[in-house]
Amino acid sequence: MHHATYFEVVDIPQLMREFPVGQAFMDRFQGMAPQDLRAHQEALFARQLERAWQIPFYQRLWGGAGLKPGDVRSLADIERLPEFGKQEVMDSIARRPPFGDHHGREIPVDGVIHPMIVHTTSGTTGRPQPLLFSPRTREVHNLILARAYLLQGLRPTDVVHSVYGHGPVNGGHYIREAALHYTAATFLAGGTGVETPSAKQVELMRDFGTTVIAGFADYIKRLADVAREMGIVPGRDIPVRMITGHLAKDARASLSEAWGGVELFDWYGVGDTGLIATEGPDHDGMHIMEDAHWVEICDVDSGRPVGHGDAGDMVITCLFTHDIFPIIRFNTHDVTRCLTTPSQLQLPFRRIEGFLGRSDNMVKLRGINVFPQALSSILAEMPGFNGEYLCVLTRDASGREDLMVRIESTQDRGPVPVQACAALLKRRLGVEVGVELVEPRALSALTGVESRQKPIRLLDRRKA
Amino acid sequence: MHHATYFEVVDIPQLMREFPVGQAFMDRFQGMAPQDLRAHQEALFARQLERAWQIPFYQRLWGGAGLKPGDVRSLADIERLPEFGKQEVMDSIARRPPFGDHHGREIPVDGVIHPMIVHTTSGTTGRPQPLLFSPRTREVHNLILARAYLLQGLRPTDVVHSVYGHGPVNGGHYIREAALHYTAATFLAGGTGVETPSAKQVELMRDFGTTVIAGFADYIKRLADVAREMGIVPGRDIPVRMITGHLAKDARASLSEAWGGVELFDWYGVGDTGLIATEGPDHDGMHIMEDAHWVEICDVDSGRPVGHGDAGDMVITCLFTHDIFPIIRFNTHDVTRCLTTPSQLQLPFRRIEGFLGRSDNMVKLRGINVFPQALSSILAEMPGFNGEYLCVLTRDASGREDLMVRIESTQDRGPVPVQACAALLKRRLGVEVGVELVEPRALSALTGVESRQKPIRLLDRRKA
Repeated sequence: MHHATYFEVVDIPQLMREFPVGQAFMDRFQGMAPQDLRAHQEALFARQLERAWQIPFYQRLWGGAGLKPGDVRSLADIERLPEFGKQEVMDSIARRPPFGDHHGREIPVDGVIHPMIVHTTSGTTGRPQPLLFSPRTREVHNLILARAYLLQGLRPTDVVHSVYGHGPVNGGHYIREAALHYTAATFLAGGTGVETPSAKQVELMRDFGTTVIAGFADYIKRLADVAREMGIVPGRDIPVRMITGHLAKDARASLSEAWGGVELFDWYGVGDTGLIATEGPDHDGMHIMEDAHWVEICDVDSGRPVGHGDAGDMVITCLFTHDIFPIIRFNTHDVTRCLTTPSQLQLPFRRIEGFLGRSDNMVKLRGINVFPQALSSILAEMPGFNGEYLCVLTRDASGREDLMVRIESTQDRGPVPVQACAALLKRRLGVEVGVELVEPRALSALTGVESRQKPIRLLDRRKA
Repeated sequence: MHHATYFEVVDIPQLMREFPVGQAFMDRFQGMAPQDLRAHQEALFARQLERAWQIPFYQRLWGGAGLKPGDVRSLADIERLPEFGKQEVMDSIARRPPFGDHHGREIPVDGVIHPMIVHTTSGTTGRPQPLLFSPRTREVHNLILARAYLLQGLRPTDVVHSVYGHGPVNGGHYIREAALHYTAATFLAGGTGVETPSAKQVELMRDFGTTVIAGFADYIKRLADVAREMGIVPGRDIPVRMITGHLAKDARASLSEAWGGVELFDWYGVGDTGLIATEGPDHDGMHIMEDAHWVEICDVDSGRPVGHGDAGDMVITCLFTHDIFPIIRFNTHDVTRCLTTPSQLQLPFRRIEGFLGRSDNMVKLRGINVFPQALSSILAEMPGFNGEYLCVLTRDASGREDLMVRIESTQDRGPVPVQACAALLKRRLGVEVGVELVEPRALSALTGVESRQKPIRLLDRRKA
């Protein structure tokens, strides 16, 4: 059996035509009729199904649900296929270490064994999970991310500084490949503060004239503070005009302001799937890249599709992974809702509001689902809120559960009005929660805002 | 002017034919007649010259030496072109920050502006220098390194663990691209001990069944120690069969032994040029990749070519960089000598002995050139030598300079015989040096063996 190398199994120019970026992307999709998009998706989905039925993981998952090849032939029937999550992937790896039986690498595609790209997740939510890609999958990921950057307005004259991490972790390598190979901008792989100390990052940005920063919001904000401490004015001495990355809904205004009032772009993706949706120049939700991903929003409890516009888990089917690890109905347990207004960009794609929280971090209070991460977008409406908070969940002797939201006050803008906060949260969440004001930086050690890429927003004290 | 993206300016399948790897490499070059190789080199060199004359840096360097385009047309006349070094590159950057005037990126190639890949050196010998590549240059670097790995015997079933660093530094990204894109092996980017703690690296290697480690000798040795401390037996629980990387001549036997008696392969390269020469399965020096590099060995003092087999500075001309930063007569200040015996692999290429030291670290004692880094290969002959030493250079009131070699003793094998060491060094260096025995690990803080990728071997106390 021939073990092929990377470029023997992926035809880059062909892939660039299949998944266009920049103006070619707009030309292809603007004004596309829904039925044309659907026909495209169905053709890709059929290839995914065919491959998945060759792979032990899916044979087990789907066979266990009483399904046979041919039972599901169309996206209209996709709900008949059971979903799976990170746990099933980890079980697959435990069953056949080190890479599991979900990738199917050893099953030839057109008579050749494809090479397999191995990275890991950052492991912020437990043991790092191996991420497995084929060359094709990898390059589609890169193309779709580059498409997002170009849609956001990245220019050939831009200098991009990335603070995503490297080592075995996928993030930094993914961002680098996308920017380097599919945009004409100049790219520098800064890495995390562990790879390149923050003061050094600031010097590199100043020396190289960085105009775009890519990364997680918290660390990008921190770099602005470090720059000021060094006597370097963000936005002036470092001419940043755009920040693109994992911004969630945390304190966007303060991040933009810290860098001199720059434009912000959020995007949503998962290690296994790559970018799924991106904010565009319309700043009106995130456009799902529906030529590459079929996204269902499913009820957190029942797993059934929710009504258009209602919140639920994102369940992802990739339409381009028909060699190694076809991904069909992967439940991210990330919660969002679709926007119901039409696309200002005339794209045929649905839009999501963005990452609203994780359903496995979800708190049920008096029958109401509360997502701790989603509180930041509500609290951002309060004057004086600096973005830092922590929800503490408790249970009393009677079994009643309560949520106390601790909020950091900021010295310069005065304390956050506690009563108004509580009223706002009750109105928006639909259930009463406590609010407590704490000193600036009092929560840092618990949230890990300075050491983790994704701060902790929920402390579960029920076990105590 | 069109700003092209990466794959618009580099035709990968074409490049794979131009710079073959694996069996295709052997088929192309084994038994090739010298004049056929030379004709190939001359054709590539002509393109380099043409491009270089378009670039301000070379116009200044060569024009300043009284040369005009057309004065040099062939490799036979290459010595008429002045060499340059890292200092001239840094001057170019100072003259036109941030990237200098030596790359010529803004001068279109066939009517398009090529994208420029930016990394930095690790900065172990001063301020990090930007490394600038075109897509073509980058992919040739990757191909030549993959060629080395395959020549060394890398197989599709191997699992490669790299401990080269990432962030803005070139090394880790370069190794990853070469292995991932041009070999069929499975690759994991471990990164340095800062990116992934050593115990975690060992776990990853055990879990993923690492068979090949790529990196710097000192850290790979350290990982074997860490594994043993964790109760993991290197070579058994981690089935490593091969180590490839920057081994220099330091204590190869102890490195091999630490990993259970594995085969070792050294290679030599520079950030700007990529791999220049590699050890092969014959373990008989390093084969210069002469279809990609024209290598001169020049006298450290006069800059004139030395006799075949004599030691001198490696002066490199790349034969494939005719878009961004053509490299013509770059003096690495790394010292080596050519081997005079015929190639056991029937390749038409010259071989070098390997990295013997840096001429800018060279010590002149009684008219004899001594390279502190080169002492390790001499001392390796002494029983009990653990690889750790430091040369201390002093000057007395009369102006006489002396070199004292401090050597760490090892507890388990007894002390190194001081008299025998001194005698050996005198015989091999041709000049007398002092030898002093110190406690195990006594030199760590001065050599930086645990924190630096390249330990310090010379302490210049003459200024005191």
